[in-house]
Amino acid sequence: MEVRMVKVLKDIMSANNTIAAENSRVFNERKVLTCNLMASPGAGKTSFITATYNAVKDRTPFAVIEGDIASQIDADKFAAMGVPVAQINTGGGCHLDANMIQSAINQFGLPDNSILFIENVGNLVCPASYKLGEQLRIVMSSTTEGYDKPYKYPAIFTDADAIILNKIDIAHAVEFDFALFEKGIRALNEQVPIFAISCKTGEGIQAWTDWLMNRKTEIYPGA
Amino acid sequence: MEVRMVKVLKDIMSANNTIAAENSRVFNERKVLTCNLMASPGAGKTSFITATYNAVKDRTPFAVIEGDIASQIDADKFAAMGVPVAQINTGGGCHLDANMIQSAINQFGLPDNSILFIENVGNLVCPASYKLGEQLRIVMSSTTEGYDKPYKYPAIFTDADAIILNKIDIAHAVEFDFALFEKGIRALNEQVPIFAISCKTGEGIQAWTDWLMNRKTEIYPGA
Repeated sequence: MEVRMVKVLKDIMSANNTIAAENSRVFNERKVLTCNLMASPGAGKTSFITATYNAVKDRTPFAVIEGDIASQIDADKFAAMGVPVAQINTGGGCHLDANMIQSAINQFGLPDNSILFIENVGNLVCPASYKLGEQLRIVMSSTTEGYDKPYKYPAIFTDADAIILNKIDIAHAVEFDFALFEKGIRALNEQVPIFAISCKTGEGIQAWTDWLMNRKTEIYPGA
Repeated sequence: MEVRMVKVLKDIMSANNTIAAENSRVFNERKVLTCNLMASPGAGKTSFITATYNAVKDRTPFAVIEGDIASQIDADKFAAMGVPVAQINTGGGCHLDANMIQSAINQFGLPDNSILFIENVGNLVCPASYKLGEQLRIVMSSTTEGYDKPYKYPAIFTDADAIILNKIDIAHAVEFDFALFEKGIRALNEQVPIFAISCKTGEGIQAWTDWLMNRKTEIYPGA
């Protein structure tokens, strides 16, 4: 039983990685900087993408792929702002995979030279295993979840290219221990930048978007 | 590919249900009321079990099985309080399954006639699919996650026997919309009781534990 499961998982992972590599090639050709945003339910992913969009929209085209098990609550918000957006409903599935992204790319007006945010299903576990073809893996945690997430969900923090700590405006009210949070991350990922932000007050958004725009210039010089 | 995965998943589910039924038989024989607690990372599961324990410890034996991908931070807390506790580390796995529980039952001093809390891996998706042999499925959400969790993660709310809304002491600060939260739940699960609580202030804990102790008496009269 266990062995069979592993075998099939290996096949799934191999097929996923092949499609992820194809997606990556498309993104590179079209100079799309793709960010795979992963977080717990309710960490503030949609608010964070919205804050990022508002901060960079005068400097870059922008698009969003929304991943949810059900509903299109978040996609409707971006459509209302005029952002090109595709909705993926996984129908019970606990993560996005590269095949879903490949289908989505061809079904909405993804602009060239853009920043594409992929909002993964709210889950700190399963999305860590599935590459989508992204250049940047962004992991968000929020102060209300407590300091111990890196200790309990290590895989997703280990591979992150940037870590966002949201809801710092209520860090004091929830007695968030930043030192222990950072210590947990550093044990897994020595170099990753950590951006402490509040989507509500706007604190920290500029430092984050400066880093993001710099990454875009480094990855696609002259785009 | 897709078909093969579904086939194996069916085998896994069938094997899991068989072991869950065995666990259920053991719990019934020993008159153990087992609660499978499921929530997002950081919703406050451990604080909630602690508050429940403190409210009922003079009326019932109590035990805990802790499920985590890694670490034993939470199990250490219960051990320090003198509560019989078993730690399961899934080593990357995104949910507990019935086999893990079967192993755990035999490896720690689970008291007869007790309330057993199983703290599942923090995840609003995958644990919904795996029965453990529990009598009660308890789903917790917290105000800081936003009102929309029942809309986005419907499966786990549909099967719940009780829903706990935690962190109501900061509901106002995070502008939590209780009416929309309740509406989302009622669309999935008409009868389920919803307990709004704060583990920090203790608000709502008595109503919740009264319900829990009543359920124990109903399920095991005279125990």
